[in-house]
Amino acid sequence: MASSLLIKNASQVVTMAGKTEKPARQNAMQQLNVIENGSVLVVDGKIKGVGKLEELKQRYKDDSAAAEVVDATGKTVTPGLIDPHTHLVHAGTRENEYAMRLKGQSYMEIMNAGGGIHATTRATREAGFDQLHEESKQRLDTFFQYGVTTVEAKSGYGLSLEHELKQLEVAAKLNEDHAMDIVSTFMGAHAVPVDEKENPEPFVSRVIEEMIPEVARRKLADFNDVFCERGVFTPDQSRRILEAGKAHGLVPKIHADEIEPYGGAELAAEVGAISADHLLKASEEGIGKMAGNNVIGVLLPGTAFFLMAEYANARKMIDSGVPVALSTDANPGSSPTLSLQFIMNLGCLKMGMTPEEVLSATTINAAHAINRADTIGSLEVGKQADIAIFDVPNYLMLSYNYGMNHIDGVVKRGQFVVAGGQLEN
Amino acid sequence: MASSLLIKNASQVVTMAGKTEKPARQNAMQQLNVIENGSVLVVDGKIKGVGKLEELKQRYKDDSAAAEVVDATGKTVTPGLIDPHTHLVHAGTRENEYAMRLKGQSYMEIMNAGGGIHATTRATREAGFDQLHEESKQRLDTFFQYGVTTVEAKSGYGLSLEHELKQLEVAAKLNEDHAMDIVSTFMGAHAVPVDEKENPEPFVSRVIEEMIPEVARRKLADFNDVFCERGVFTPDQSRRILEAGKAHGLVPKIHADEIEPYGGAELAAEVGAISADHLLKASEEGIGKMAGNNVIGVLLPGTAFFLMAEYANARKMIDSGVPVALSTDANPGSSPTLSLQFIMNLGCLKMGMTPEEVLSATTINAAHAINRADTIGSLEVGKQADIAIFDVPNYLMLSYNYGMNHIDGVVKRGQFVVAGGQLEN
Ligand SMILES: [Zn+2]
Ligand SMILES: [Zn+2]
Repeated sequence: MASSLLIKNASQVVTMAGKTEKPARQNAMQQLNVIENGSVLVVDGKIKGVGKLEELKQRYKDDSAAAEVVDATGKTVTPGLIDPHTHLVHAGTRENEYAMRLKGQSYMEIMNAGGGIHATTRATREAGFDQLHEESKQRLDTFFQYGVTTVEAKSGYGLSLEHELKQLEVAAKLNEDHAMDIVSTFMGAHAVPVDEKENPEPFVSRVIEEMIPEVARRKLADFNDVFCERGVFTPDQSRRILEAGKAHGLVPKIHADEIEPYGGAELAAEVGAISADHLLKASEEGIGKMAGNNVIGVLLPGTAFFLMAEYANARKMIDSGVPVALSTDANPGSSPTLSLQFIMNLGCLKMGMTPEEVLSATTINAAHAINRADTIGSLEVGKQADIAIFDVPNYLMLSYNYGMNHIDGVVKRGQFVVAGGQLEN
Repeated sequence: MASSLLIKNASQVVTMAGKTEKPARQNAMQQLNVIENGSVLVVDGKIKGVGKLEELKQRYKDDSAAAEVVDATGKTVTPGLIDPHTHLVHAGTRENEYAMRLKGQSYMEIMNAGGGIHATTRATREAGFDQLHEESKQRLDTFFQYGVTTVEAKSGYGLSLEHELKQLEVAAKLNEDHAMDIVSTFMGAHAVPVDEKENPEPFVSRVIEEMIPEVARRKLADFNDVFCERGVFTPDQSRRILEAGKAHGLVPKIHADEIEPYGGAELAAEVGAISADHLLKASEEGIGKMAGNNVIGVLLPGTAFFLMAEYANARKMIDSGVPVALSTDANPGSSPTLSLQFIMNLGCLKMGMTPEEVLSATTINAAHAINRADTIGSLEVGKQADIAIFDVPNYLMLSYNYGMNHIDGVVKRGQFVVAGGQLEN
């Protein structure tokens, strides 16, 4: 007997229908395809029907009669949110650095006190598989509680073959034994190891010659990412790393133009990256090339909020035809949040995006940014039944009632993983 | 038999001890009096002891033996948060206005579409007592879920004797039948009624001659507040209104210098206000006078965040000796949030306050701002047992893991009202 679930009479069902073929851009980001007083029928973990209750009952008599029924009166139903850029697997927290920064200590003082990305690298290298698995598992539980049903997860705190593989293996294990779907990105080129700062070329070679082939051979990642920024990896090094990944079947992503315009957006277009991320300082030319080459802009306003920096120019990117997605950038140094709802608030209030655009950016466009739009990102027949139920009567309330968690329920592949705001066991 | 509760072995107990006599200012705002691995014993709704578990067990043998024991290992315990500035009692929401604003429509376009404060005034006047009670009750439940145990609540959407009394009566009823403590402020002078804009004097007279005496006679408020801003009430009108309140035993508060420097901070000092609130544009002279006259600065960074305005200069105020408190300013127009935790994030990240200062500002100084520091705002022997338990190992995490709700449990007068993040029934 098929297991089925009927979520009925939501005051709004935001379907995001019609954007599976290609990412939404410009006006398409405004179109949510909302069904007022709508219902969703799920059978065997997939969406069977979306529409008015009576239609669904007539059209799918047996399934709807057999279904577990959940009343969503007064609530808003959306596709499960998708976070397309996280540094999920790592050890430890860096709240002490944060406190130092708030008390006016400089970047160098913090580094000299053992802070910065290398603190997380040390902790992650020292951590065993089980510790990393446990810390990351708790983060996935929290992501669920804020409405996220799929996360991308990058390596990049190992910076050696052994420890990069460890991070990716933790992600692979979590993808198996946690209900969350995890899409993995290899990011050996996240930083230059602290003792190779003077001459990063040998490290670049190890990334290209040792790490990428092994990660690809073990099928531990779909994507290959690089931190292209002055003082980290140059555009030339980034290009070689991304091309090496492509030769092994890893699709390029890029941390681009976060601190200064450095040609990252342009490089993303050139190598055919699926996304370029950050983009606070992306040049006008780079934005134009992204638009012309279907590169998704993954914007991370939480990082700007937390680092007190300026925000990426989302308005210009959308108006130029770049399909935009949003993400937490969850990581212990520059963005220690797990709330994609709050990132939506920032999209509206700090980047001039509309409530409709931020929803497109955290559902269907986020799915496109991790190449999963064929199965997730919208509530359409045949897609995976990943569903968020918010305790608000319309989607505008999600960012209007700012700084809050509005989740009521989360359905993952047809099963409730959060109900009444609480994690199910 | 006395009912008792023992919260044991929290990784940190933030007591805020020693600031009951007068509000914390300057360095005192940095002193939280944290007990590492601490416990709290509650008897009959009051704090009986705070310290190490073994000490408490020895000193209060019978009470601790009889107590319900709650293990807080790995968690952080603080005084219940206090929100000293809310517009709790009102009808309706204004998310449509918010969406219009995000789409670039002007203030005038929104007003012409029936928006602005007068929209809430209309809705609140039309609402019956029961509707207002129900909507406000839900907000109180949500405040609990974010760790707040006392809220100040202002009238000011009635703007007539009848409807101002209705708002205050709803607050009084909620103070009785909801576990939350509510401290009421009369704010008939929140806006000039829309049909009296040309000549507000008759309205000012009604506030002074009709409303204040009746509110005082019925003991419906402790405080009297006025919106002193160009185009609303002048400093002269504000002074007359606040002095009239004083003559009837209502302590002055003031919405001051939000949009331009208008002498509000100075007026607060002159009339002996307990607090001046907003203060985005307070003058240097006004700040100095507040410091010299013990006026608490209640800062509302959520409003600046939501309206995309600049923040109040918290750093200057604290450094000048103004005792600072923080609040949500919860209201449907300019700050529709109920999360004082998020306001703490903004205090740190957008106003240059330290994690210690934001905790002082949402506990003991907030208690002083509503004249309740004798009973709440710190975990000290004899005070009311209003306690927040956060699911983080130290208080720095509260704003480091930004944009999230960290509450695990909330104890109100010795009873759990939130447990495991969920409201108790
Ligand atoms: Zn990143
Ligand atoms: Zn106010």
